[in-house]
Amino acid sequence: MTVDLVVKNAIVVTCDEEQTVIQNGGVAVSNGRITQIGESAALEQAAGSARNVLDGSGHILMPGLINSHCHAADSLFRGLVEDLPLEPWLQKVWTAEGAILNPQTSHLGSLLGFSELLLSGVTSTMDMFWYPMETVRAAREVGMRVSTGGIFFDGPGVDGATLDDRIASAEAFFEAFAGADDVFPATMPHGAYTVGPENLETARDITDKHGGLFSTHAAETKAEQADVEGRYGSSVIRHLDHLDLLDERTTLAHCVHLDDEEIAILARTGTTVSHNPMSNLKLASGIARIPDMLAAGVHVALGTDGAISGNDLDMWMALRLAATLHKGASQRADAVSTHQALGMATRSGARALGAADRLGSLEKGKLADMILIDVKRPHAVPMFDPVTHLVYSTAKSDVRHVFVGGEQVVRDGVLTRHTLDDTLNAVAELAPRIAATVA
Amino acid sequence: MTVDLVVKNAIVVTCDEEQTVIQNGGVAVSNGRITQIGESAALEQAAGSARNVLDGSGHILMPGLINSHCHAADSLFRGLVEDLPLEPWLQKVWTAEGAILNPQTSHLGSLLGFSELLLSGVTSTMDMFWYPMETVRAAREVGMRVSTGGIFFDGPGVDGATLDDRIASAEAFFEAFAGADDVFPATMPHGAYTVGPENLETARDITDKHGGLFSTHAAETKAEQADVEGRYGSSVIRHLDHLDLLDERTTLAHCVHLDDEEIAILARTGTTVSHNPMSNLKLASGIARIPDMLAAGVHVALGTDGAISGNDLDMWMALRLAATLHKGASQRADAVSTHQALGMATRSGARALGAADRLGSLEKGKLADMILIDVKRPHAVPMFDPVTHLVYSTAKSDVRHVFVGGEQVVRDGVLTRHTLDDTLNAVAELAPRIAATVA
Repeated sequence: MTVDLVVKNAIVVTCDEEQTVIQNGGVAVSNGRITQIGESAALEQAAGSARNVLDGSGHILMPGLINSHCHAADSLFRGLVEDLPLEPWLQKVWTAEGAILNPQTSHLGSLLGFSELLLSGVTSTMDMFWYPMETVRAAREVGMRVSTGGIFFDGPGVDGATLDDRIASAEAFFEAFAGADDVFPATMPHGAYTVGPENLETARDITDKHGGLFSTHAAETKAEQADVEGRYGSSVIRHLDHLDLLDERTTLAHCVHLDDEEIAILARTGTTVSHNPMSNLKLASGIARIPDMLAAGVHVALGTDGAISGNDLDMWMALRLAATLHKGASQRADAVSTHQALGMATRSGARALGAADRLGSLEKGKLADMILIDVKRPHAVPMFDPVTHLVYSTAKSDVRHVFVGGEQVVRDGVLTRHTLDDTLNAVAELAPRIAATVA
Repeated sequence: MTVDLVVKNAIVVTCDEEQTVIQNGGVAVSNGRITQIGESAALEQAAGSARNVLDGSGHILMPGLINSHCHAADSLFRGLVEDLPLEPWLQKVWTAEGAILNPQTSHLGSLLGFSELLLSGVTSTMDMFWYPMETVRAAREVGMRVSTGGIFFDGPGVDGATLDDRIASAEAFFEAFAGADDVFPATMPHGAYTVGPENLETARDITDKHGGLFSTHAAETKAEQADVEGRYGSSVIRHLDHLDLLDERTTLAHCVHLDDEEIAILARTGTTVSHNPMSNLKLASGIARIPDMLAAGVHVALGTDGAISGNDLDMWMALRLAATLHKGASQRADAVSTHQALGMATRSGARALGAADRLGSLEKGKLADMILIDVKRPHAVPMFDPVTHLVYSTAKSDVRHVFVGGEQVVRDGVLTRHTLDDTLNAVAELAPRIAATVA
C-alpha cells in the first residue's frame, strides 16, 4: 500500500470517544483514509516511504470541523439587513434574495461561503439553500464535503418553483449523488411555519425512500412557536414529533425555545440539535437550553447559520460561545465542558451527517479530513491543555493547512483548488445591485 | 510644518460624535497628531511633501481600540485553571501567581499580553497588575499607551508588599509619570471585597492629590455582592458611593449585578463601567445589564479582562459580544446598536482614560493612534456598511498596520519595536514551572 501522506511532530487532538491527545504524534494516510495514528517515532517507517511528509511542529493536528447548519450563499447579503428580530428581518431578506438569486449568483455566494469555511478549518457543512445542485458544484470546486438537497417551502419561494418542481428536484438530487462520498443528500424543508404538514411529510418520504438526511429550522423564536401553536395546536417540536419526523436522520437548527418535555422528545428520538449561538444572539432569538439538552442526552451539534444573520461563518466563534455563553447565562461554571463543546463541532457533526463511522475524529480507518492549527501565536502561549486552547482561544486565522480525504485543500492559509480573489472581486461587482434591493 | 505621514485611499471610520465615515479618505500626521482628515483628493498636497505615504486601498482606517480593563501579565496563566466560578478560581489563581510572579516574570507576561493587544489593534489599555512599573516598561517596549498604577490589596498580596509599601509605590508611580503622554497614572485597588474602606479611601486620596484615575473590580459576581453586603450592609456600588469613590475619574470593571438604583448612581456620578463580556461568560459571573445602563446614561467602555479568565485579549470578540450578547439575552434586536458598541471600544475608552480630548476618534488635533484593517477577506465581502463590518465580522487577524502617536508599531501584522518570538520562547520555557504550581 502506498503511503500518500504522513503528518508528524504535531500535538494530535484526536476528538475520539476517549478524548485521546498525543503530545508528539501524527498520522499516515493512504487513499484518503487514516491508516496509522500515533507517536511520531512510530510513524518513521511510514514517513520513509511516503509521497509527502508534513512536519507539524508547533501545530495542533485535529479533525476538520463540521458545520451542521449554514446557508453559505447568503454570504452575498452579509450585513445588508441589521438589528431586526427574525420575522421582519426575514421579510427584507426574502425581498433581497428574490431580486438577486439565481443559479449563477447562488453558486457565487456558495463559493464565497465555502471558501471562508474551508480556510477556517471546516471540512464538512450542512447547507440549506435554494439551488442545491449549485451548492454542490461550489463545494466541489473548493474541496469541501456538503450535505444539502431539495428545498421545501410553501408558495413559490425565491426560485419560483412549484411543489411538483420541488418534489422532482429533491428526487433528482438523491439520484445524482447516491453513493457519493463528498455529498450527504438530504431534504431540507424550511420550517414548520413555512411548510405545511403535508409537504413536510412529502419531503420526509423522499428522504426515507433514499435513506438520506432531513433538516429544518425549528423553535428558533417565540413568534415562530406562537405561529405554529396557533395553526396546529402544538409547539414546533411536538408538531414535528406528531408528524413522525424526528429520529437519528433529523437535524433541527436552533431549538432555542424548548420546554422540558420537548427536550425529552428530542433525546428519545435521537434527533440532532444544531446549536447556532451567534445567529441566535444577533437575531435576538434567545439563548438555547444547551446544558439541559446535554443533561437529557440530546445530541447537540454546532453551526454558524448563514452570514446573513451572523455576519461571518466562524465555527471557532460558535465553539467558543457554546462553551462560554451557557456558563454566563446559567451562572454555572461547569455548564458546558470543553470536551462537550469540542465534541459538538466534530463527532456530533459527523453523527448528524450519518457519517460517524468515517468522520468527526482522527482514527484508523476514518477519512483523512484534518486540519493543522498554528500554536506559535501570542494568544496560544503558554498552552497547558490543547483542548482548552482549541475551545477558548483558537482563532480561525490560526488554521494553516486543511486536508479533505487526504487532499490538501488549504496550504499555508491559501486555498489550493480555487482562486479566492476572483470570487471576492465578483461579489464586490455584484454588491451595488444587492444594496439596491433594500434601498 | 513637516508632514510625517499621510494615509490615503482608505475607508475612514472616524468614530467621532457624528459617526462620520469617509468612503475614500485618509489623514495627514505631524508630530504625532492628526493635522488633516478628509477625502483622499484633499490630501494630495500633504502627500506630496510627506516623509511617508501609506496607500490604504482595501482597508478601513479607524482609531486604535481602547481596552478599559486588562491584566496583561496574567497571560502567563492562560488556561491554567478552568471551569470554576470566580471565587474558588481566584484561590487557585492566587496560588499560581504567588509562586511565579516577580518583577521579571510580570514584565515577561506584560510583554506577551501587550504584544497580543497591539497586534490586534489595541493602542491603549487600562491594566491592573502587581508591578506597575514593569507594566509600563513592557508597554513602552512594544509601543502601547497604558493606564496603570499602585495596587491596593489588604494583606500581603503576591508581591509581599505592606500597606506602607503600597502607599509609597502609588505615590512614586504618580511622580514618575506626571506629564507623560503614554502613561495615564491611576491607583487600582483590587475590589471592595479585598480592600477595606479605609484603604480604598487612602488609594483614592492619592489619586485625587495627583489628579489621576481610579479603577477597581465591582459587582462582578453574586458571591461578591453577598460578601460586601454582609460586611458593610450595602451593595458594592452603594458602598463605593458612600465612600465617595464614584465620579468621572473612576472605572469599575464588570458591574454584572446591579439593580436600577445602582445603575442610576453610576449614571449620576459619571462613573465608567468597563464591560468585559467574555470574562463574565466564561467565569459564569452572569450577563451585565448593558442596555439598561446605556438607557440610563451610564458611560460604558469595553474590556477583555486578563487571558487568565477569557483566555485571550481579543477586543474584537468583546466588541462583537457587546453588540450581540444583549440582543440574545433580552430578545430585543435593538438592545445595543453597532454605533453604541463601537463607541464603547473607542470614545468611551478614551473618556475612561481622561483623554477624550486627544484619543478615541480620528479628528484634527487628536493623537494619531490609528489602525488599518484589511477588508479583502472572505468574511468582509460584500461590505454594505463599514461600521457593521467592524462590529459584526472583523477578526483580530484583519489588523495589518497600527500607529501610536504617528509611529508605526505594527507593520503588515508584525510588531516593529519588539521581537515576538523571543517573548513566546521565554514564556514557553517558563510554562512547566507555571504548570507545577497547580499540579
